[in-house]
Amino acid sequence: MSTNLGIPKRSEGFSDWYNELVQKADLADYSPVRGCMVIKPNGYRIWELMQGALDGMFKDTGHENAYFPLLIPKSFLSKEAEHVEGFAKECAVVTHHRLMANPDGPGVVVDPDAKLEEELVIRPTSETIIWNMYKKWIQSYRDLPVLLNQWCNVMRWELRTRLFLRTAEFLWQEGHTAHATFEDAEREALTILEIYRRFAEEWMAVPVLSGVKSNTEKFAGAHHTYCIEALSQEGKCIQAGTSHHLGDNFARAFDVTYQSPEGKLEYVHATSWGLSTRMVGTLIMVHSDDKGLVAPPRLAPVQVAIVPLGKDEAAREATYSAADRLAEDLKKSGWDGLAVRVKVDKRERESPGFKFNDWELKGACLRIELGPRDLEGGTVVLARRDTGEKATVPLDEVVSAVGERLADMQRALFENAKRFRDENTFRIDTWEDFEKHFEGEGGAGFVLAHWDGTDETELAISERTKATIRCILREPLHPDDAKPGKCVLTGRPSPQRVVFAKAY
Amino acid sequence: MSTNLGIPKRSEGFSDWYNELVQKADLADYSPVRGCMVIKPNGYRIWELMQGALDGMFKDTGHENAYFPLLIPKSFLSKEAEHVEGFAKECAVVTHHRLMANPDGPGVVVDPDAKLEEELVIRPTSETIIWNMYKKWIQSYRDLPVLLNQWCNVMRWELRTRLFLRTAEFLWQEGHTAHATFEDAEREALTILEIYRRFAEEWMAVPVLSGVKSNTEKFAGAHHTYCIEALSQEGKCIQAGTSHHLGDNFARAFDVTYQSPEGKLEYVHATSWGLSTRMVGTLIMVHSDDKGLVAPPRLAPVQVAIVPLGKDEAAREATYSAADRLAEDLKKSGWDGLAVRVKVDKRERESPGFKFNDWELKGACLRIELGPRDLEGGTVVLARRDTGEKATVPLDEVVSAVGERLADMQRALFENAKRFRDENTFRIDTWEDFEKHFEGEGGAGFVLAHWDGTDETELAISERTKATIRCILREPLHPDDAKPGKCVLTGRPSPQRVVFAKAY
Repeated sequence: MSTNLGIPKRSEGFSDWYNELVQKADLADYSPVRGCMVIKPNGYRIWELMQGALDGMFKDTGHENAYFPLLIPKSFLSKEAEHVEGFAKECAVVTHHRLMANPDGPGVVVDPDAKLEEELVIRPTSETIIWNMYKKWIQSYRDLPVLLNQWCNVMRWELRTRLFLRTAEFLWQEGHTAHATFEDAEREALTILEIYRRFAEEWMAVPVLSGVKSNTEKFAGAHHTYCIEALSQEGKCIQAGTSHHLGDNFARAFDVTYQSPEGKLEYVHATSWGLSTRMVGTLIMVHSDDKGLVAPPRLAPVQVAIVPLGKDEAAREATYSAADRLAEDLKKSGWDGLAVRVKVDKRERESPGFKFNDWELKGACLRIELGPRDLEGGTVVLARRDTGEKATVPLDEVVSAVGERLADMQRALFENAKRFRDENTFRIDTWEDFEKHFEGEGGAGFVLAHWDGTDETELAISERTKATIRCILREPLHPDDAKPGKCVLTGRPSPQRVVFAKAY
Repeated sequence: MSTNLGIPKRSEGFSDWYNELVQKADLADYSPVRGCMVIKPNGYRIWELMQGALDGMFKDTGHENAYFPLLIPKSFLSKEAEHVEGFAKECAVVTHHRLMANPDGPGVVVDPDAKLEEELVIRPTSETIIWNMYKKWIQSYRDLPVLLNQWCNVMRWELRTRLFLRTAEFLWQEGHTAHATFEDAEREALTILEIYRRFAEEWMAVPVLSGVKSNTEKFAGAHHTYCIEALSQEGKCIQAGTSHHLGDNFARAFDVTYQSPEGKLEYVHATSWGLSTRMVGTLIMVHSDDKGLVAPPRLAPVQVAIVPLGKDEAAREATYSAADRLAEDLKKSGWDGLAVRVKVDKRERESPGFKFNDWELKGACLRIELGPRDLEGGTVVLARRDTGEKATVPLDEVVSAVGERLADMQRALFENAKRFRDENTFRIDTWEDFEKHFEGEGGAGFVLAHWDGTDETELAISERTKATIRCILREPLHPDDAKPGKCVLTGRPSPQRVVFAKAY
């Protein structure tokens, strides 16, 4: 029995641990295209479950899905001044629409006669193409609100990549809504922020800080940007979802107006909001351990791995069929509104020890061992992935025991992550301490500090420490955090503490 | 009350009817990017429901979802000889990764310094990038089979576009499987063909012919291609799903071998199979009428539209809340395993007649009219979209009446389409009759005729008539169809009749 899982320990290097875990647990792999990843079945299943949860919440709040083109005319990008600044630098550009046989050798080359009149950009985000359509669709206040979302791929050229967390192509949902008034758009942006927070905490079991971005960190083209921010086990911050109030910036850029009930022409107000496959990386980074993936039961690709044992064929015949029956019972009984996601491991060339490790690596929440003696005694051994706890459970109580343990584990993962987050949240009041905290490779956790509210100070702080303002909290963690103080760098007045951290 | 729905009649021009219907029923719209469409919420909902049905069947047969990169290195495309012939001519090519401010004026231009070393192609289909990965993942017979599917967008440059049916970008699923033997791959290709047939007939209510493509019509790189073929109301054929047995062509091109239990190195065998948003167009073309969309209940975006009536606010207050209660009851009761998709139409500025027409246009399967007098009498009026049938139903029987009518309508749509297909299936034995049948703009329906099996004859027939061989049936429609005869063009021996039609 080999216990060498082939992944490094977190303490030996968080980055190596993460990269190896992601590949070995069949979550994702590198592709031959620089910056692009392959999402493998175990990882994609997490994303599918995330989609299901979010899509339900979007539909419950009146949103519908649609689909807009992948390619955006180059000229669209420059219609909103800030937007082009933010996205033109990292775009994949389509210039031709045909290849041809290489006249000078083997293979194919770009056909120079197939040059496009106007270059097209692979969407880095879809505000421009969508607001071009909204101009056609929106005439009257009766056409509002428009509450659309799309699930799609986007591309932002990246040279440094990290599987799930930073890739040139990623999958996401992007919502784009149109409203009659600034207040309506504000309400929408906050509705979505709350959906994101609930999703992170109740599904992903990841506690998040939610707040508003500073001016320099807001979305290119937004009036203001709301966000949720998570903390990895190495104490770095992950931006986990953003909800932008766009004001009437895009309506002005694309000339989208509506006639009010009083017959006046008004600009439309907008929001956009997105959450991506980066969340799969977040989930992995927050919960997993040196044995492999730990996934919250609501989003785990495999909730129960049943390993029937038996030294010979006769023994296996009995345990295999008992395992199959148990799997059916679990699927039928369901948990959290869905069939329990269960696998029966019948690989005959692998040892039990190998299988146990393999399911731990791949993040099965519970493991059921079912040997001939268990079967005789009418029991199974039930092991929990996060705590390692093992219990002997009568066969006819397995279904309820599984349900209880899944619920317990969902709760425990959140509580543990919350405790870690709380233990790694600091209040710092002097520049000396602040600089020391973030020195070198250090600087784990969230630092609540005062800031004078200017772009210059924010930039100076991030240049000196690599820490950035992650958000200005909507609700203070402690009432005192909302009280005025002095900027940690300049000593100038500050209305409240803001959240600093080093981010991925 | 206006009855002008603004869509032409089918008899006035099928194409105009289709294009107007698709746009007016909020199914899709043209985009500013040539060849690309916008899928609007009503149309996207159909696709989502299609995805749910198919995805369930794929998972039930052991497939898992994954995601591979959008961009494919140019050189990959030319590794399989037939494949590059088939796809290089219609590719969107990414040559640069950055835009920059235009030095000579406003806007942005392509940054010449950001030229890629190797151009990338937007996937027209993903065999090449996937088999590049399979080379890494497959070593031993124990790694087989690999049964993956992905839901994604693909791009094949098109100048002529027709919403849903022919667009440069479209959404689809593409399955890519790897097997130890030719026979295993054959079994897989047929498993999927049967899933596609069931999906078309049982969900879409579209009868299809299923068979194998002739040599000239098979997928570029396949050993052979299975397909399902549907018939629109104007009698043209729509290729509705294809399942390719790729043999070991891609394994050889990408050098993917496995070690057999006996220790021998063998090439892997492959299938790929796809079904796209073209099916939304197929559904529309097969069932809809001059009033607008008719959708089979299992895939209808709206199954029940409740229109509460009332001349004044007091009357409306009562009917509105009764409508809301009814909607909740329907959602809770469910149909076909899902919550009933129900909308309550509370638009106050529109007349009842406008609303009735609007829901007919948008394809609600059933309409419930609920006026003050109905409410007093404890009844509602229930109208069926396909037949126009109206019935008065007691309020406490609405839920079961809705369920029955949805099931009846699902059945009726299939039967009607099947009758139409049968009435438009012809057996033709002389070249004179064959040519006459397909003359000019005519040539509705499927023609079963004999063919000598050669590429030359097939091409000659399609050049002279614009009819192509749609498939060689797996099961004859009539036993005589499987008997030998003489080729309709050359008179040479033919083993069986094959299916000719004009296709979109």
